[in-house]
Amino acid sequence: MVDDNCLFCRIVSGDLPATIVYEDKTSLAFLDHRPLFHGHTLLVPREHFETLGDLSPQLIEPYFKAAKLLSLVVESAMDAEGTFVAMNNRVSQSVPHLHVHIVPRRRKDGLKGFFWPRTKYKSDEEIKEVQSKLQAALQKINS
Amino acid sequence: MVDDNCLFCRIVSGDLPATIVYEDKTSLAFLDHRPLFHGHTLLVPREHFETLGDLSPQLIEPYFKAAKLLSLVVESAMDAEGTFVAMNNRVSQSVPHLHVHIVPRRRKDGLKGFFWPRTKYKSDEEIKEVQSKLQAALQKINS
Repeated sequence: MVDDNCLFCRIVSGDLPATIVYEDKTSLAFLDHRPLFHGHTLLVPREHFETLGDLSPQLIEPYFKAAKLLSLVVESAMDAEGTFVAMNNRVSQSVPHLHVHIVPRRRKDGLKGFFWPRTKYKSDEEIKEVQSKLQAALQKINS
Repeated sequence: MVDDNCLFCRIVSGDLPATIVYEDKTSLAFLDHRPLFHGHTLLVPREHFETLGDLSPQLIEPYFKAAKLLSLVVESAMDAEGTFVAMNNRVSQSVPHLHVHIVPRRRKDGLKGFFWPRTKYKSDEEIKEVQSKLQAALQKINS
């Protein structure tokens, strides 16, 4: 379950250097070397999974327990007012090994977390159509 | 553990309408009415917790199991190429009730997930200083 061509697998194995900030049996966290802000941390499962959807069920609890802990750690260490905790699955994902970004935030820090242009549903029909698509996919994936 | 003034607690209780797309014993998901893209879903724990750091330990597994499932559901339903899965803790958090955004993504969709201006660590000393701060906070929080 290790991909020799994967940058993060190579960090996990010690083959590539990184500034480690946390580790446990199943996860490792290190500083992003191109941080949004200082203290920007990446948390990876030691095993190679590409996306959140690929993460093995038994790792969900330990992995997100570590993410929760790191959200508290990063906020406290960097004297921040909050955090941004995010995963890019495939699109905008620079390394195809699941990683949670934990980024310290301050008000007016210039990071437009969710000030991207929002759109709208034009009508009740349109929103219900989207709801139906999601419910159909849920049935299919759960069956 | 319900806050009557909380918009999301009121959706959970049925007091306010929402377009529900998923529910289980501990979590509820509904469409964001100002989506980044159609299908943009918000997943909340039924119980009121402000941030990820506040989420009760026994809810980590069921909550993120639902987040994983919804990342697959949203991608499939919206015929997307990937997803953006994120939490804003306090800063940029519009409703102070923990919620995971699950957003369908396509290449060149205009959402600059992580194309925000990145910064750098000026020196090895600087990155090690940040590492020390994080390790100290980890010790403190874990003790």
